[in-house]
Amino acid sequence: MRQRPYNFSAGPAAMPEAVLQQAAAEMLDWHGSGMSVMEMSHRGKEFVSICEQAEADLRELLAVPPTFKILFMQGGGLAENAIVPMNLAARKPARLMDFIVTGAWSQKSAQEARKYGDATVAASGADTGFTTIPAPATWPLRDGLSYVHLCSNETIHGVEFHELPDLQALGCDAPLVIDFSSHVLSRPVDWSRVGLAFGGAQKNIGPAGVTLVVVREDLLGHALPVCPSAFDYRTVAEHASMYNTPPTYGIYMAGLTFQWLKAQREGALSGVAAMEARNLAKARLLYDCIDGSQLYVNRVDPACRSRMNIPFQLREERLNDAFLAQARAHGLLQLKGHKSVGGMRASLYNAMPLEGVQALVEFMRDFERHHA
Amino acid sequence: MRQRPYNFSAGPAAMPEAVLQQAAAEMLDWHGSGMSVMEMSHRGKEFVSICEQAEADLRELLAVPPTFKILFMQGGGLAENAIVPMNLAARKPARLMDFIVTGAWSQKSAQEARKYGDATVAASGADTGFTTIPAPATWPLRDGLSYVHLCSNETIHGVEFHELPDLQALGCDAPLVIDFSSHVLSRPVDWSRVGLAFGGAQKNIGPAGVTLVVVREDLLGHALPVCPSAFDYRTVAEHASMYNTPPTYGIYMAGLTFQWLKAQREGALSGVAAMEARNLAKARLLYDCIDGSQLYVNRVDPACRSRMNIPFQLREERLNDAFLAQARAHGLLQLKGHKSVGGMRASLYNAMPLEGVQALVEFMRDFERHHA
Repeated sequence: MRQRPYNFSAGPAAMPEAVLQQAAAEMLDWHGSGMSVMEMSHRGKEFVSICEQAEADLRELLAVPPTFKILFMQGGGLAENAIVPMNLAARKPARLMDFIVTGAWSQKSAQEARKYGDATVAASGADTGFTTIPAPATWPLRDGLSYVHLCSNETIHGVEFHELPDLQALGCDAPLVIDFSSHVLSRPVDWSRVGLAFGGAQKNIGPAGVTLVVVREDLLGHALPVCPSAFDYRTVAEHASMYNTPPTYGIYMAGLTFQWLKAQREGALSGVAAMEARNLAKARLLYDCIDGSQLYVNRVDPACRSRMNIPFQLREERLNDAFLAQARAHGLLQLKGHKSVGGMRASLYNAMPLEGVQALVEFMRDFERHHA
Repeated sequence: MRQRPYNFSAGPAAMPEAVLQQAAAEMLDWHGSGMSVMEMSHRGKEFVSICEQAEADLRELLAVPPTFKILFMQGGGLAENAIVPMNLAARKPARLMDFIVTGAWSQKSAQEARKYGDATVAASGADTGFTTIPAPATWPLRDGLSYVHLCSNETIHGVEFHELPDLQALGCDAPLVIDFSSHVLSRPVDWSRVGLAFGGAQKNIGPAGVTLVVVREDLLGHALPVCPSAFDYRTVAEHASMYNTPPTYGIYMAGLTFQWLKAQREGALSGVAAMEARNLAKARLLYDCIDGSQLYVNRVDPACRSRMNIPFQLREERLNDAFLAQARAHGLLQLKGHKSVGGMRASLYNAMPLEGVQALVEFMRDFERHHA
């Protein structure tokens, strides 16, 4: 098989080639069972073992404390924008929820939550076109909140919290909810600052259709009466993600990715720590190329630039089409930016090797030289 | 590769071997794109073409009229038990919904719908242990209903509507909602009698995690304010199932299954008509074996016996374990019945060839002879 192109899609996104090869090899017969994973009853011993292993590996990789439940659900991040408030808004009778808006995704979350309570934007980066994150010390968080929500990495605007806020230190005792869809497993999570984290799988975990929810146990059991049973976190937790038929094949693919992650090494580091080191190096390479050029520009404050999703513009927009066509010819795929931001976007998820970013940077410098 | 065993799982269930082989072959590079289908942006031209082809093939196979929308969603049949009333209950201010309960699934649907309106069981087969379906002419349907719900094939109890009721002929002008999860594509659907049909994919279509909804256009636009945007049928329809990231790989697998179905032939018949003829022959073979034996029994009224899910008991329950172990040794997998019914269950979905049922019947006769 020839060298595969480098795929910079923001999601669904590239997966490790070794994972795809294993999935192809096991497609018709998983471990001598005579079945494809997608043909197994979700209650049979084969699939239960796959699901339990995936959960255990994820717990190990992200150092999830035993006081948190790991749930595999359906609906993606967009559905969670409703499912989270349906589960948590009623923690307090006033149903107050404060949102930190740092880009398109947290904006959507705040809007959807208004269906279920008093969802208010406490702080926003809109004034700067979502190129900055307002300092946590300036957030006017209300008293008696059911929770505070933020998106810890904004896929479209390329804005990332390099550190999660410590709400307790800010005098707020509400749990922090984070949407970590687009950088989960790219770096460690400080669970002491988090009450609930959710994410779609299709960026850094596996195929679209699996939603990951990591939730502190004391937050279970507050679902609104209108919350569908299939999306009541307590019900899902009590049935170990098997209350309704889970997306079995997606969980299997996620599990293969977790095993691949556990085997990754960077010097003395392994697992997520190794990925973080590699992701830092990858992002630095691309930001240095952008910042050192006359053609490319990224306007996000370096203090909150994303390591995963790097949007950049060509100062001469008429070159956009040529850039994309030549990139494709060089085996560099899916670099077109989101329509709301324009320009380009390179997503450097875990499955993107350093070599892919090197190839992109080399292409970008050549392209600039030819169009100077 | 050796002969694969026959897999009688009720779902997730066996898939056509040719479909699995094609998926394995295309895993790392779909049609020269350099990407696995699970690595493609759902908005890219490659995946959009896959999704549009799947929808067109399904429309052709099931002869879905142009006045119906086909939606690919997430959450499974269980989530639809809430999503349907969240979308349809408010068609009329009184939010009246009548349910025909013929087994475990319609029972669950009725219970969940109570969260969203006045959901009432109009008729039930519970008196006979769900071995009969009350005659439609006896259903005391209320006036001013938002809709009538039934499960056209009960996976657990093995009860199937051989013909859908004609609500208009019964003097009811409400739309009929059918849960056709476990027999979709096994027979034609009379769309003149249906307003909305939904089903999880994991029985007769593809992997778990894709939900199919076929809905008449005039039923869109009545979602309750608490309905999550991701599950508002009108929103999903307006965005051609791309409002949130769809379960892309599952839709691709469903599409391969649709293409396989279109190529099936039985004499002069093709597609779903061919499958119906084959499914009738498969079911007859197994019911004849059961009815002709002293050991096996199926208590469902022949007028409503399922062609897809055939539960049967051994009159000597002490033989259950031996039956399952010996069946497995003969390459006949996942025959254990649902815990609420006990005994055995053979699911004979489209992907189960006649040869698989012949092998099962042969084994059952041998087993009875040895234990007479």
